Amino acid sequence: MELISQNHCFGGEQSVYKHASDLCNCDMTFAVYLPPQAKVAPVPVLWFLSGLTCTHENAMTKAAAQGFAAQHGLALVFPDTSPRGGDVANDGAYDLGQGAGFYVNATQEPWAPHFQMWDYITAELQDLVTEEFPIMADRQGITGHSMGGHGALTMAMRLPDQYKSVSAFAPIAQPSQSDWGRKQFSAYLGDDETTWLNHDATHLMATLGYPGNVLIDQGEADEFITLLRTDALRDAMQARTQAGIVRMHGGYDHSYFFISSLMEDHIKHHAAALCN
Amino acid sequence: MELISQNHCFGGEQSVYKHASDLCNCDMTFAVYLPPQAKVAPVPVLWFLSGLTCTHENAMTKAAAQGFAAQHGLALVFPDTSPRGGDVANDGAYDLGQGAGFYVNATQEPWAPHFQMWDYITAELQDLVTEEFPIMADRQGITGHSMGGHGALTMAMRLPDQYKSVSAFAPIAQPSQSDWGRKQFSAYLGDDETTWLNHDATHLMATLGYPGNVLIDQGEADEFITLLRTDALRDAMQARTQAGIVRMHGGYDHSYFFISSLMEDHIKHHAAALCN
Repeated sequence: MELISQNHCFGGEQSVYKHASDLCNCDMTFAVYLPPQAKVAPVPVLWFLSGLTCTHENAMTKAAAQGFAAQHGLALVFPDTSPRGGDVANDGAYDLGQGAGFYVNATQEPWAPHFQMWDYITAELQDLVTEEFPIMADRQGITGHSMGGHGALTMAMRLPDQYKSVSAFAPIAQPSQSDWGRKQFSAYLGDDETTWLNHDATHLMATLGYPGNVLIDQGEADEFITLLRTDALRDAMQARTQAGIVRMHGGYDHSYFFISSLMEDHIKHHAAALCN
Repeated sequence: MELISQNHCFGGEQSVYKHASDLCNCDMTFAVYLPPQAKVAPVPVLWFLSGLTCTHENAMTKAAAQGFAAQHGLALVFPDTSPRGGDVANDGAYDLGQGAGFYVNATQEPWAPHFQMWDYITAELQDLVTEEFPIMADRQGITGHSMGGHGALTMAMRLPDQYKSVSAFAPIAQPSQSDWGRKQFSAYLGDDETTWLNHDATHLMATLGYPGNVLIDQGEADEFITLLRTDALRDAMQARTQAGIVRMHGGYDHSYFFISSLMEDHIKHHAAALCN
Protein backbone atom coordinates (compact mmCIF):
# COMPACT_ATOMS: atom_id res chain seq x y z
CA MET A 1 0.00 0.00 0.00
CA GLU A 2 1.60 3.23 -1.17
CA LEU A 3 0.58 6.67 0.09
CA ILE A 4 -0.14 8.96 -2.89
CA SER A 5 -1.29 12.08 -1.08
CA GLN A 6 -2.35 13.22 2.36
CA ASN A 7 -4.13 16.45 3.33
CA HIS A 8 -5.21 17.61 6.76
CA CYS A 9 -8.98 18.13 6.61
CA PHE A 10 -11.45 19.06 9.36
CA GLY A 11 -8.92 18.04 11.99
CA GLY A 12 -8.39 14.61 10.40
CA GLU A 13 -6.50 13.25 7.42
CA GLN A 14 -7.71 12.79 3.85
CA SER A 15 -5.37 10.27 2.21
CA VAL A 16 -5.10 8.55 -1.16
CA TYR A 17 -3.42 5.16 -1.50
CA LYS A 18 -2.47 2.79 -4.29
CA HIS A 19 -2.21 -0.96 -3.79
CA ALA A 20 -1.76 -4.07 -5.90
CA SER A 21 -5.13 -5.81 -6.09
CA ASP A 22 -5.04 -9.61 -6.38
CA LEU A 23 -8.65 -9.78 -7.47
CA CYS A 24 -8.50 -6.99 -10.06
CA ASN A 25 -5.04 -7.97 -11.25
CA CYS A 26 -3.83 -4.38 -11.34
CA ASP A 27 -2.98 -1.44 -9.12
CA MET A 28 -6.08 0.09 -7.55
CA THR A 29 -6.42 3.57 -6.03
CA PHE A 30 -8.68 4.50 -3.14
CA ALA A 31 -9.10 7.36 -0.67
CA VAL A 32 -9.66 7.23 3.09
CA TYR A 33 -10.75 10.03 5.38
CA LEU A 34 -9.92 9.50 9.05
CA PRO A 35 -11.68 11.94 11.38
CA PRO A 36 -9.86 13.41 14.40
CA GLN A 37 -11.52 10.83 16.67
CA ALA A 38 -9.53 8.07 14.92
CA LYS A 39 -6.34 9.36 16.57
CA VAL A 40 -7.68 8.10 19.89
CA ALA A 41 -9.62 4.93 19.11
CA PRO A 42 -11.08 2.99 16.16
CA VAL A 43 -14.09 4.61 14.50
CA PRO A 44 -17.06 3.45 12.41
CA VAL A 45 -16.75 3.80 8.65
CA LEU A 46 -18.98 4.85 5.77
CA TRP A 47 -18.18 3.58 2.27
CA PHE A 48 -19.03 5.90 -0.62
CA LEU A 49 -19.29 4.20 -4.02
CA SER A 50 -19.08 6.57 -6.98
CA GLY A 51 -20.86 6.72 -10.30
CA LEU A 52 -20.03 6.27 -13.97
CA THR A 53 -16.83 8.01 -15.18
CA CYS A 54 -15.75 8.83 -11.60
CA THR A 55 -12.61 7.82 -9.74
CA HIS A 56 -11.96 7.93 -5.98
CA GLU A 57 -11.42 11.66 -6.38
CA ASN A 58 -14.83 13.12 -7.33
CA ALA A 59 -16.62 12.46 -4.07
CA MET A 60 -13.46 13.10 -2.05
CA THR A 61 -13.27 16.67 -3.38
CA LYS A 62 -16.88 17.57 -4.24
CA ALA A 63 -19.27 15.73 -1.91
CA ALA A 64 -18.53 17.89 1.18
CA ALA A 65 -18.69 14.78 3.38
CA GLN A 66 -15.59 15.21 5.54
CA GLY A 67 -16.89 18.02 7.74
CA PHE A 68 -19.99 16.08 8.77
CA ALA A 69 -17.96 12.87 9.11
CA ALA A 70 -15.64 14.71 11.50
CA GLN A 71 -18.60 15.93 13.56
CA HIS A 72 -19.80 12.36 14.06
CA GLY A 73 -16.44 10.58 14.19
CA LEU A 74 -17.00 8.57 11.02
CA ALA A 75 -14.24 7.41 8.69
CA LEU A 76 -14.95 7.55 4.94
CA VAL A 77 -13.67 5.25 2.18
CA PHE A 78 -13.87 6.31 -1.47
CA PRO A 79 -12.97 3.38 -3.78
CA ASP A 80 -12.36 3.70 -7.50
CA THR A 81 -15.17 2.63 -9.85
CA SER A 82 -13.22 -0.01 -11.82
CA PRO A 83 -9.82 -1.53 -12.47
CA ARG A 84 -7.65 0.69 -14.67
CA GLY A 85 -4.49 0.58 -16.72
CA GLY A 86 -3.08 -0.21 -20.13
CA ASP A 87 -3.63 -3.98 -19.89
CA VAL A 88 -7.16 -3.67 -18.50
CA ALA A 89 -9.95 -4.13 -21.04
CA ASN A 90 -11.85 -0.99 -22.01
CA ASP A 91 -14.57 0.27 -24.29
CA GLY A 92 -15.02 3.50 -26.17
CA ALA A 93 -18.30 4.22 -24.38
CA TYR A 94 -18.34 6.10 -21.06
CA ASP A 95 -20.66 3.50 -19.55
CA LEU A 96 -18.70 0.30 -20.09
CA GLY A 97 -15.22 -0.78 -19.04
CA GLN A 98 -12.84 1.50 -17.15
CA GLY A 99 -14.81 3.88 -14.95
CA ALA A 100 -17.91 1.70 -15.24
CA GLY A 101 -17.33 -1.49 -13.27
CA PHE A 102 -20.96 -1.63 -12.07
CA TYR A 103 -19.84 -3.38 -8.85
CA VAL A 104 -20.15 -6.92 -10.23
CA ASN A 105 -17.72 -9.84 -10.72
CA ALA A 106 -17.42 -10.21 -14.48
CA THR A 107 -17.64 -13.76 -15.82
CA GLN A 108 -17.32 -12.86 -19.50
CA GLU A 109 -14.31 -12.05 -21.69
CA PRO A 110 -12.56 -9.67 -22.02
CA TRP A 111 -13.73 -8.32 -18.63
CA ALA A 112 -13.34 -11.29 -16.28
CA PRO A 113 -9.55 -11.05 -15.70
CA HIS A 114 -9.83 -7.60 -14.04
CA PHE A 115 -13.44 -6.53 -13.43
CA GLN A 116 -14.10 -8.17 -10.05
CA MET A 117 -15.48 -5.11 -8.31
CA TRP A 118 -18.04 -6.89 -6.08
CA ASP A 119 -15.42 -9.01 -4.38
CA TYR A 120 -12.88 -6.20 -4.52
CA ILE A 121 -15.12 -3.84 -2.54
CA THR A 122 -16.77 -6.34 -0.20
CA ALA A 123 -13.72 -8.50 0.55
CA GLU A 124 -10.27 -7.41 -0.63
CA LEU A 125 -10.45 -3.65 -0.01
CA GLN A 126 -12.63 -4.37 3.03
CA ASP A 127 -9.88 -6.48 4.57
CA LEU A 128 -7.15 -4.01 3.67
CA VAL A 129 -8.98 -1.02 5.09
CA THR A 130 -10.04 -2.66 8.34
CA GLU A 131 -6.54 -4.06 8.91
CA GLU A 132 -4.52 -0.97 8.02
CA PHE A 133 -6.64 1.79 9.59
CA PRO A 134 -8.26 2.37 12.99
CA ILE A 135 -11.66 1.35 11.67
CA MET A 136 -14.27 -0.78 13.46
CA ALA A 137 -15.02 -3.75 11.18
CA ASP A 138 -18.33 -4.34 12.92
CA ARG A 139 -19.61 -0.79 12.37
CA GLN A 140 -19.71 -0.20 8.64
CA GLY A 141 -22.25 1.59 6.49
CA ILE A 142 -22.42 2.08 2.74
CA THR A 143 -23.76 4.73 0.38
CA GLY A 144 -23.13 5.85 -3.16
CA HIS A 145 -24.25 7.87 -6.15
CA SER A 146 -25.92 6.63 -9.34
CA MET A 147 -23.98 3.46 -10.35
CA GLY A 148 -22.49 3.68 -6.85
CA GLY A 149 -25.95 3.90 -5.30
CA HIS A 150 -26.74 0.67 -7.13
CA GLY A 151 -23.57 -0.86 -5.68
CA ALA A 152 -24.37 0.34 -2.16
CA LEU A 153 -27.95 -0.95 -2.16
CA THR A 154 -27.12 -4.35 -3.63
CA MET A 155 -24.16 -4.89 -1.29
CA ALA A 156 -26.14 -3.83 1.78
CA MET A 157 -29.13 -6.05 1.00
CA ARG A 158 -27.00 -9.10 0.25
CA LEU A 159 -24.51 -8.49 3.08
CA PRO A 160 -26.54 -6.88 5.87
CA ASP A 161 -24.23 -8.25 8.58
CA GLN A 162 -21.34 -6.40 6.96
CA TYR A 163 -23.14 -3.14 6.16
CA LYS A 164 -25.19 -2.04 9.15
CA SER A 165 -26.58 1.05 7.43
CA VAL A 166 -27.33 2.00 3.85
CA SER A 167 -28.38 5.02 1.80
CA ALA A 168 -28.12 6.13 -1.81
CA PHE A 169 -28.09 9.29 -3.91
CA ALA A 170 -29.97 8.92 -7.21
CA PRO A 171 -29.18 5.19 -7.50
CA ILE A 172 -29.58 3.07 -10.61
CA ALA A 173 -32.48 1.35 -8.94
CA GLN A 174 -33.50 -1.33 -11.42
CA PRO A 175 -30.56 -1.96 -13.77
CA SER A 176 -31.97 -5.21 -15.18
CA GLN A 177 -34.72 -3.15 -16.81
CA SER A 178 -32.65 -0.07 -17.79
CA ASP A 179 -30.19 0.89 -20.50
CA TRP A 180 -27.95 1.64 -17.53
CA GLY A 181 -27.65 -2.02 -16.62
CA ARG A 182 -28.77 -4.31 -19.42
CA LYS A 183 -25.84 -3.39 -21.65
CA GLN A 184 -23.33 -3.77 -18.83
CA PHE A 185 -24.79 -6.94 -17.25
CA SER A 186 -24.88 -8.53 -20.68
CA ALA A 187 -21.22 -7.67 -21.24
CA TYR A 188 -19.96 -8.54 -17.74
CA LEU A 189 -22.32 -11.37 -16.73
CA GLY A 190 -23.55 -12.81 -20.02
CA ASP A 191 -26.99 -13.34 -21.48
CA ASP A 192 -28.55 -15.41 -18.69
CA GLU A 193 -30.62 -12.70 -17.08
CA THR A 194 -31.22 -14.74 -13.93
CA THR A 195 -27.59 -13.98 -13.00
CA TRP A 196 -28.39 -10.28 -13.20
CA LEU A 197 -30.99 -10.32 -10.46
CA ASN A 198 -28.40 -10.51 -7.67
CA HIS A 199 -27.36 -7.05 -8.87
CA ASP A 200 -30.76 -5.44 -9.20
CA ALA A 201 -31.74 -3.35 -6.16
CA THR A 202 -35.44 -3.50 -6.94
CA HIS A 203 -35.37 -7.30 -7.24
CA LEU A 204 -33.35 -7.60 -4.03
CA MET A 205 -35.76 -5.25 -2.27
CA ALA A 206 -38.67 -7.46 -3.34
CA THR A 207 -36.96 -10.69 -2.28
CA LEU A 208 -34.63 -9.74 0.60
CA GLY A 209 -35.23 -6.20 1.83
CA TYR A 210 -32.92 -4.69 4.43
CA PRO A 211 -32.98 -4.97 8.22
CA GLY A 212 -32.73 -1.25 8.86
CA ASN A 213 -33.84 2.15 7.58
CA VAL A 214 -33.08 2.76 3.91
CA LEU A 215 -32.59 6.42 2.90
CA ILE A 216 -32.77 7.24 -0.82
CA ASP A 217 -32.67 10.77 -2.23
CA GLN A 218 -33.59 11.56 -5.82
CA GLY A 219 -33.71 14.87 -7.66
CA GLU A 220 -36.85 15.51 -9.68
CA ALA A 221 -34.82 17.43 -12.30
CA ASP A 222 -32.35 14.56 -12.66
CA GLU A 223 -31.49 14.38 -16.36
CA PHE A 224 -31.12 10.57 -16.09
CA ILE A 225 -34.28 9.87 -14.10
CA THR A 226 -35.81 7.53 -16.69
CA LEU A 227 -32.66 5.39 -16.59
CA LEU A 228 -32.60 5.27 -12.78
CA ARG A 229 -36.12 3.81 -12.30
CA THR A 230 -36.49 5.11 -8.76
CA ASP A 231 -40.23 4.47 -8.94
CA ALA A 232 -39.74 0.73 -9.25
CA LEU A 233 -37.58 0.61 -6.13
CA ARG A 234 -40.00 2.81 -4.20
CA ASP A 235 -42.86 0.50 -5.18
CA ALA A 236 -40.87 -2.54 -4.03
CA MET A 237 -40.16 -0.82 -0.70
CA GLN A 238 -43.82 -0.01 -0.21
CA ALA A 239 -44.91 -3.54 -1.20
CA ARG A 240 -42.85 -5.09 1.61
CA THR A 241 -43.29 -2.14 4.00
CA GLN A 242 -39.52 -1.71 4.05
CA ALA A 243 -38.38 0.71 6.77
CA GLY A 244 -37.04 3.83 5.13
CA ILE A 245 -37.94 6.46 2.60
CA VAL A 246 -37.44 7.53 -1.01
CA ARG A 247 -37.37 11.32 -0.99
CA MET A 248 -38.02 13.26 -4.20
CA HIS A 249 -36.40 16.71 -4.26
CA GLY A 250 -37.73 19.39 -6.58
CA GLY A 251 -35.16 21.15 -8.75
CA TYR A 252 -32.17 18.91 -8.09
CA ASP A 253 -30.25 17.26 -10.94
CA HIS A 254 -27.73 14.38 -11.02
CA SER A 255 -24.64 16.43 -10.12
CA TYR A 256 -22.46 16.74 -7.03
CA PHE A 257 -24.37 19.94 -6.23
CA PHE A 258 -27.28 17.60 -5.45
CA ILE A 259 -25.08 15.18 -3.49
CA SER A 260 -23.42 17.89 -1.39
CA SER A 261 -26.81 19.48 -0.65
CA LEU A 262 -28.08 16.25 0.93
CA MET A 263 -24.81 14.93 2.38
CA GLU A 264 -25.44 16.12 5.94
CA ASP A 265 -28.68 14.11 6.08
CA HIS A 266 -26.93 10.97 4.86
CA ILE A 267 -24.07 11.29 7.33
CA LYS A 268 -26.62 11.72 10.13
CA HIS A 269 -28.55 8.67 8.87
CA HIS A 270 -25.43 6.50 9.02
CA ALA A 271 -24.15 7.99 12.26
CA ALA A 272 -27.47 7.16 13.92
CA ALA A 273 -26.91 3.49 13.08
CA LEU A 274 -23.14 3.29 13.54
CA CYS A 275 -22.03 5.82 16.16
CA ASN A 276 -23.63 4.89 19.48
CA MET B 1 -24.55 37.50 -20.51
CA GLU B 2 -24.97 33.87 -21.50
CA LEU B 3 -25.98 31.10 -19.08
CA ILE B 4 -23.49 28.21 -19.32
CA SER B 5 -24.83 25.93 -16.59
CA GLN B 6 -27.23 25.98 -13.69
CA ASN B 7 -27.56 23.48 -10.84
CA HIS B 8 -29.95 23.50 -7.93
CA CYS B 9 -27.84 23.54 -4.77
CA PHE B 10 -28.89 23.81 -1.11
CA GLY B 11 -32.27 25.14 -2.18
CA GLY B 12 -30.72 27.86 -4.35
CA GLU B 13 -29.12 28.03 -7.77
CA GLN B 14 -25.45 27.65 -8.68
CA SER B 15 -25.00 29.20 -12.12
CA VAL B 16 -22.11 29.85 -14.50
CA TYR B 17 -22.23 32.72 -16.99
CA LYS B 18 -20.10 34.02 -19.82
CA HIS B 19 -20.09 37.68 -20.85
CA ALA B 20 -18.11 39.96 -23.15
CA SER B 21 -15.83 42.07 -20.96
CA ASP B 22 -15.05 45.56 -22.24
CA LEU B 23 -12.14 45.97 -19.86
CA CYS B 24 -10.51 42.60 -20.48
CA ASN B 25 -11.32 42.65 -24.20
CA CYS B 26 -12.46 39.04 -24.23
CA ASP B 27 -15.19 36.74 -23.01
CA MET B 28 -15.03 36.22 -19.26
CA THR B 29 -16.61 33.41 -17.24
CA PHE B 30 -17.91 33.68 -13.68
CA ALA B 31 -20.13 31.73 -11.30
CA VAL B 32 -22.88 33.00 -9.01
CA TYR B 33 -24.60 31.17 -6.19
CA LEU B 34 -27.99 32.57 -5.20
CA PRO B 35 -29.32 31.18 -1.90
CA PRO B 36 -33.03 30.36 -1.51
CA GLN B 37 -33.59 33.69 0.28
CA ALA B 38 -32.80 35.51 -3.00
CA LYS B 39 -36.10 34.27 -4.46
CA VAL B 40 -37.90 36.59 -2.05
CA ALA B 41 -35.70 39.67 -1.73
CA PRO B 42 -32.19 40.90 -2.55
CA VAL B 43 -29.42 39.36 -0.45
CA PRO B 44 -25.89 40.35 0.64
CA VAL B 45 -23.02 38.91 -1.39
CA LEU B 46 -19.59 37.44 -0.70
CA TRP B 47 -16.96 37.54 -3.46
CA PHE B 48 -14.49 34.65 -3.54
CA LEU B 49 -11.29 35.35 -5.49
CA SER B 50 -9.35 32.24 -6.47
CA GLY B 51 -5.66 31.43 -6.61
CA LEU B 52 -3.05 30.69 -9.24
CA THR B 53 -4.08 28.21 -11.98
CA CYS B 54 -7.72 28.28 -10.85
CA THR B 55 -10.82 29.27 -12.80
CA HIS B 56 -14.28 30.14 -11.44
CA GLU B 57 -14.83 26.40 -11.03
CA ASN B 58 -12.42 25.29 -8.30
CA ALA B 59 -14.01 27.11 -5.38
CA MET B 60 -17.49 26.59 -6.80
CA THR B 61 -17.06 22.79 -6.61
CA LYS B 62 -14.50 22.25 -3.82
CA ALA B 63 -14.81 25.01 -1.21
CA ALA B 64 -18.08 23.73 0.33
CA ALA B 65 -19.33 27.31 0.66
CA GLN B 66 -22.88 27.04 -0.69
CA GLY B 67 -24.39 25.20 2.27
CA PHE B 68 -23.25 27.81 4.77
CA ALA B 69 -24.15 30.63 2.38
CA ALA B 70 -27.67 29.20 2.18
CA GLN B 71 -27.90 29.07 5.97
CA HIS B 72 -27.12 32.78 6.20
CA GLY B 73 -28.80 34.00 3.01
CA LEU B 74 -25.56 35.09 1.33
CA ALA B 75 -24.99 35.12 -2.42
CA LEU B 76 -21.54 34.04 -3.66
CA VAL B 77 -19.62 35.24 -6.72
CA PHE B 78 -16.68 33.24 -8.08
CA PRO B 79 -14.83 35.22 -10.79
CA ASP B 80 -12.16 33.77 -13.04
CA THR B 81 -8.53 34.58 -12.21
CA SER B 82 -7.58 36.22 -15.52
CA PRO B 83 -8.66 36.94 -19.06
CA ARG B 84 -8.40 33.89 -21.31
CA GLY B 85 -8.44 32.93 -24.96
CA GLY B 86 -6.32 32.50 -28.04
CA ASP B 87 -5.60 36.20 -28.53
CA VAL B 88 -4.84 36.85 -24.85
CA ALA B 89 -1.14 37.00 -23.95
CA ASN B 90 0.19 34.05 -22.01
CA ASP B 91 3.37 32.64 -20.52
CA GLY B 92 4.62 29.09 -20.19
CA ALA B 93 4.88 29.44 -16.40
CA TYR B 94 1.88 28.60 -14.20
CA ASP B 95 2.31 31.84 -12.27
CA LEU B 96 2.18 34.44 -15.06
CA GLY B 97 -0.43 35.21 -17.71
CA GLN B 98 -3.65 33.23 -18.07
CA GLY B 99 -4.74 31.88 -14.69
CA ALA B 100 -2.46 34.34 -12.91
CA GLY B 101 -3.89 37.84 -13.28
CA PHE B 102 -2.87 38.85 -9.76
CA TYR B 103 -5.84 41.26 -9.57
CA VAL B 104 -4.00 44.28 -11.00
CA ASN B 105 -4.48 46.51 -14.04
CA ALA B 106 -1.50 45.75 -16.27
CA THR B 107 0.27 48.77 -17.75
CA GLN B 108 2.96 46.84 -19.61
CA GLU B 109 2.98 44.97 -22.91
CA PRO B 110 1.92 42.36 -23.86
CA TRP B 111 -0.41 42.24 -20.84
CA ALA B 112 -2.09 45.66 -20.83
CA PRO B 113 -4.70 45.01 -23.58
CA HIS B 114 -6.43 42.25 -21.56
CA PHE B 115 -5.12 41.97 -17.99
CA GLN B 116 -7.30 44.57 -16.22
CA MET B 117 -8.42 42.36 -13.37
CA TRP B 118 -8.56 45.08 -10.66
CA ASP B 119 -11.09 47.16 -12.57
CA TYR B 120 -12.81 44.08 -13.94
CA ILE B 121 -13.56 42.75 -10.44
CA THR B 122 -14.18 46.02 -8.62
CA ALA B 123 -16.14 47.81 -11.37
CA GLU B 124 -17.23 45.91 -14.48
CA LEU B 125 -18.23 42.57 -12.97
CA GLN B 126 -19.41 44.42 -9.87
CA ASP B 127 -21.87 46.44 -11.95
CA LEU B 128 -23.01 43.43 -13.95
CA VAL B 129 -23.64 41.28 -10.88
CA THR B 130 -25.46 43.92 -8.87
CA GLU B 131 -27.62 44.85 -11.86
CA GLU B 132 -28.48 41.35 -13.07
CA PHE B 133 -29.05 39.52 -9.79
CA PRO B 134 -31.05 40.17 -6.61
CA ILE B 135 -27.93 41.28 -4.75
CA MET B 136 -27.64 44.20 -2.32
CA ALA B 137 -24.89 46.48 -3.66
CA ASP B 138 -24.42 48.05 -0.25
CA ARG B 139 -23.81 44.72 1.53
CA GLN B 140 -20.78 43.14 -0.09
CA GLY B 141 -17.89 41.24 1.42
CA ILE B 142 -14.79 39.74 -0.17
CA THR B 143 -12.54 36.77 0.52
CA GLY B 144 -10.12 34.63 -1.44
CA HIS B 145 -7.38 32.05 -1.45
CA SER B 146 -3.66 32.57 -2.01
CA MET B 147 -3.41 34.99 -4.99
CA GLY B 148 -7.14 35.54 -4.41
CA GLY B 149 -6.53 36.31 -0.73
CA HIS B 150 -4.10 38.96 -1.91
CA GLY B 151 -6.78 40.34 -4.20
CA ALA B 152 -9.43 40.31 -1.48
CA LEU B 153 -7.25 42.08 1.10
CA THR B 154 -5.98 44.76 -1.26
CA MET B 155 -9.44 45.47 -2.70
CA ALA B 156 -11.05 45.64 0.75
CA MET B 157 -8.43 47.98 2.19
CA ARG B 158 -8.51 50.35 -0.79
CA LEU B 159 -12.30 50.17 -1.26
CA PRO B 160 -13.72 49.75 2.25
CA ASP B 161 -16.99 51.46 1.32
CA GLN B 162 -17.54 48.80 -1.33
CA TYR B 163 -16.41 45.76 0.66
CA LYS B 164 -17.91 45.88 4.14
CA SER B 165 -16.20 42.68 5.30
CA VAL B 166 -12.98 40.88 4.40
CA SER B 167 -11.19 37.63 5.09
CA ALA B 168 -8.53 35.51 3.40
CA PHE B 169 -7.33 31.90 3.22
CA ALA B 170 -3.53 31.63 3.03
CA PRO B 171 -3.16 34.95 1.19
CA ILE B 172 -0.06 36.13 -0.64
CA ALA B 173 0.42 38.68 2.09
CA GLN B 174 3.46 40.67 0.95
CA PRO B 175 3.87 40.16 -2.80
CA SER B 176 6.28 43.06 -3.27
CA GLN B 177 8.82 41.05 -1.23
CA SER B 178 8.01 37.56 -2.56
CA ASP B 179 8.73 35.52 -5.66
CA TRP B 180 4.93 35.30 -5.81
CA GLY B 181 4.60 38.98 -6.62
CA ARG B 182 7.88 40.52 -7.75
CA LYS B 183 7.96 38.58 -11.01
CA GLN B 184 4.31 39.35 -11.78
CA PHE B 185 4.30 43.00 -10.69
CA SER B 186 7.41 43.57 -12.75
CA ALA B 187 5.72 42.01 -15.80
CA TYR B 188 2.31 43.64 -15.34
CA LEU B 189 3.22 46.98 -13.70
CA GLY B 190 6.82 47.61 -14.72
CA ASP B 191 9.98 48.22 -12.77
CA ASP B 192 8.86 51.22 -10.70
CA GLU B 193 8.28 49.42 -7.42
CA THR B 194 6.32 52.34 -5.94
CA THR B 195 3.46 51.31 -8.25
CA TRP B 196 3.50 47.88 -6.65
CA LEU B 197 2.65 49.07 -3.17
CA ASN B 198 -1.02 49.65 -3.97
CA HIS B 199 -1.14 45.88 -4.45
CA ASP B 200 0.75 44.78 -1.35
CA ALA B 201 -1.52 43.81 1.55
CA THR B 202 1.19 44.30 4.15
CA HIS B 203 1.97 47.81 2.88
CA LEU B 204 -1.73 48.68 2.73
CA MET B 205 -2.23 47.34 6.24
CA ALA B 206 0.61 49.57 7.49
CA THR B 207 -0.71 52.67 5.68
CA LEU B 208 -4.50 52.21 5.48
CA GLY B 209 -5.72 49.31 7.58
CA TYR B 210 -9.36 48.24 7.40
CA PRO B 211 -12.43 49.61 9.25
CA GLY B 212 -13.64 46.21 10.42
CA ASN B 213 -12.51 42.80 11.64
CA VAL B 214 -9.99 41.06 9.38
CA LEU B 215 -10.00 37.24 9.50
CA ILE B 216 -6.99 35.44 8.04
CA ASP B 217 -6.42 31.69 8.24
CA GLN B 218 -3.10 30.07 7.43
CA GLY B 219 -2.02 26.43 7.54
CA GLU B 220 1.25 25.72 9.29
CA ALA B 221 2.00 22.86 6.87
CA ASP B 222 1.38 25.10 3.85
CA GLU B 223 3.96 24.10 1.25
CA PHE B 224 4.13 27.74 0.02
CA ILE B 225 4.32 29.43 3.41
CA THR B 226 7.65 31.18 2.73
CA LEU B 227 6.17 32.74 -0.42
CA LEU B 228 3.04 33.92 1.38
CA ARG B 229 4.81 35.96 4.10
CA THR B 230 1.90 35.79 6.52
CA ASP B 231 4.21 36.93 9.33
CA ALA B 232 4.77 40.31 7.71
CA LEU B 233 1.04 40.96 7.46
CA ARG B 234 0.45 39.81 11.02
CA ASP B 235 3.19 42.16 12.25
CA ALA B 236 1.62 45.05 10.33
CA MET B 237 -1.77 44.25 11.86
CA GLN B 238 -0.28 44.20 15.35
CA ALA B 239 1.65 47.42 14.77
CA ARG B 240 -1.53 49.36 14.02
CA THR B 241 -3.72 47.30 16.41
CA GLN B 242 -5.89 46.33 13.47
CA ALA B 243 -9.12 44.64 14.57
CA GLY B 244 -8.98 41.00 13.53
CA ILE B 245 -6.81 37.93 13.76
CA VAL B 246 -4.30 35.83 11.85
CA ARG B 247 -4.96 32.24 12.87
CA MET B 248 -2.26 29.61 12.35
CA HIS B 249 -3.64 26.08 11.95
CA GLY B 250 -1.42 23.07 12.64
CA GLY B 251 -1.31 20.40 9.96
CA TYR B 252 -3.15 22.25 7.20
CA ASP B 253 -1.60 22.73 3.75
CA HIS B 254 -2.48 25.04 0.83
CA SER B 255 -5.24 22.87 -0.68
CA TYR B 256 -9.01 23.11 -0.86
CA PHE B 257 -9.12 20.59 2.00
CA PHE B 258 -7.81 23.49 4.12
CA ILE B 259 -10.25 25.99 2.61
CA SER B 260 -13.30 23.75 3.05
CA SER B 261 -12.29 22.98 6.65
CA LEU B 262 -12.39 26.69 7.57
CA MET B 263 -15.17 27.84 5.24
CA GLU B 264 -17.93 27.81 7.86
CA ASP B 265 -15.96 30.24 10.03
CA HIS B 266 -15.43 32.62 7.09
CA ILE B 267 -19.09 32.56 6.06
CA LYS B 268 -20.05 33.33 9.67
CA HIS B 269 -17.49 36.15 9.76
CA HIS B 270 -18.98 37.78 6.68
CA ALA B 271 -22.59 37.08 7.65
CA ALA B 272 -21.99 38.85 10.97
CA ALA B 273 -21.03 42.01 9.06
CA LEU B 274 -23.45 41.75 6.13
CA CYS B 275 -26.60 39.91 7.25
CA ASN B 276 -28.33 42.00 9.90
